[in-house]
Amino acid sequence: MVPNAVDFEHLDRQIRLPPFHQWLGLRLTGLDEDGIEIALPWRPELVVNTVRGYTHGGILATLVDIAADCAVAAKIGRGVPTVDMRVDYHRVALQGELRAKARLLKLGRTFASSEAYIYNAAGELCASGRGVFYVAEAATSA
Amino acid sequence: MVPNAVDFEHLDRQIRLPPFHQWLGLRLTGLDEDGIEIALPWRPELVVNTVRGYTHGGILATLVDIAADCAVAAKIGRGVPTVDMRVDYHRVALQGELRAKARLLKLGRTFASSEAYIYNAAGELCASGRGVFYVAEAATSA
Amino acid sequence: MVPNAVDFEHLDRQIRLPPFHQWLGLRLTGLDEDGIEIALPWRPELVVNTVRGYTHGGILATLVDIAADCAVAAKIGRGVPTVDMRVDYHRVALQGELRAKARLLKLGRTFASSEAYIYNAAGELCASGRGVFYVAEAATSA
Amino acid sequence: MVPNAVDFEHLDRQIRLPPFHQWLGLRLTGLDEDGIEIALPWRPELVVNTVRGYTHGGILATLVDIAADCAVAAKIGRGVPTVDMRVDYHRVALQGELRAKARLLKLGRTFASSEAYIYNAAGELCASGRGVFYVAEAATSA
Repeated sequence: MVPNAVDFEHLDRQIRLPPFHQWLGLRLTGLDEDGIEIALPWRPELVVNTVRGYTHGGILATLVDIAADCAVAAKIGRGVPTVDMRVDYHRVALQGELRAKARLLKLGRTFASSEAYIYNAAGELCASGRGVFYVAEAATSA
Repeated sequence: MVPNAVDFEHLDRQIRLPPFHQWLGLRLTGLDEDGIEIALPWRPELVVNTVRGYTHGGILATLVDIAADCAVAAKIGRGVPTVDMRVDYHRVALQGELRAKARLLKLGRTFASSEAYIYNAAGELCASGRGVFYVAEAATSA
Repeated sequence: MVPNAVDFEHLDRQIRLPPFHQWLGLRLTGLDEDGIEIALPWRPELVVNTVRGYTHGGILATLVDIAADCAVAAKIGRGVPTVDMRVDYHRVALQGELRAKARLLKLGRTFASSEAYIYNAAGELCASGRGVFYVAEAATSA
Repeated sequence: MVPNAVDFEHLDRQIRLPPFHQWLGLRLTGLDEDGIEIALPWRPELVVNTVRGYTHGGILATLVDIAADCAVAAKIGRGVPTVDMRVDYHRVALQGELRAKARLLKLGRTFASSEAYIYNAAGELCASGRGVFYVAEAATSA
């Protein structure tokens, strides 16, 4: 088990910083040694299908990316560039706050892997995925 | 080669419909038998890092999802639910319009696969990826 | 929680049937409601690098595919076609038996998702991944 | 366009070296600046389903991994560790030689991306995928 490098306030502040995260209204809702949890409030612009009110798959993909990245950031103290990611869609996400839980799979010297799970307000799994992140210091060399 | 089921105006109208696409300002910029092209104008909310001005990886993932979906929609005449997708990040995308090109890989009776490539205003490849889409009629059964 | 549709003997027999599984020497080593475990004995043909003795990444990918498929088979009673899969490599796998644990993520009417984790003889995570499987009856329609 | 670092004989010799490649009977069948092609002869141990004679998905995944790796090796002169990969299955591969074509997507200082396409003897696309590879010199640090 890799120990956390930051506390809740630090990581929450980090997550709220990017302009796109501010537009989304993201906030940290959980942090322990096993992983992180973030919340995404609903807003009407997130919808892909106005008749049925589904949240856009790109938003769920974004949430997988951010949560998986955040699970790495918790361990090394800073956000890291995503090398690649995968998202699986399990169930449509209707109007309502989404929660993303993520945990580190492996922290290496160059890369880290983590996985993320997205739940709707009823606690049902809507999407899940994983990402690889570049963690070596000279982040511009990728 | 699977023939197109829709013309440019029809597909462009379809792409502009979803509220999230409207917020993004997406529009169709190309359609032929080989694939589609869409454009994403830049806006300040898309940024992940204000110092360097990088576009958020979630936006690039969203663009891969939408373009890959659109390449399938061109062949069957309607948007389809994404089953899963993968995105690879090749280069940071700075301020400027992005272009996504996508093409069908395989159209089956139940699902379809397609791949997408994202270019910055200078024509450099910033990200690429692929998705699997559910194309059978009873789209609610996935 | 989806109940299992088969018992240990049935699933073990199923896993040992395919010629490629026989060549690999695969056997079931665990089955409960949470998932399955299979074992892959080492053999010299699995090696990619004779100097260092690394197991080939294709073998680890094969193991992710088989284990993830088996986690679905445990729930529906038969093996299913893989739609797509992803594998992440975390650590080289040296000579020695490998163990794969897999669990169902989502069982839908058309698709199922599951994830798999590969461990070396020392219990260290060497690879992990996930797959989407086609579970509707008419398996030839994909 | 990144120039090739090796010629046909060198790359063919490299591909034939690993014990698992020897068991598979792999050989290089094409190399130019745009990419590589390799051939996999059929053998009865590759089968997953004896009634229908399908080639195992793990073999197709292995072929995607090897071909994508080889497309990178052509550009930098040596095989490289796979960081992660994805495979999409488009059509069952029956008895007969398989061909894999692969091309580089991006060569960075730390990692490279490439994509691969698997064809059956009739020239039909059976599977495709992509991988990320670690190309920095100190290959043990991943």
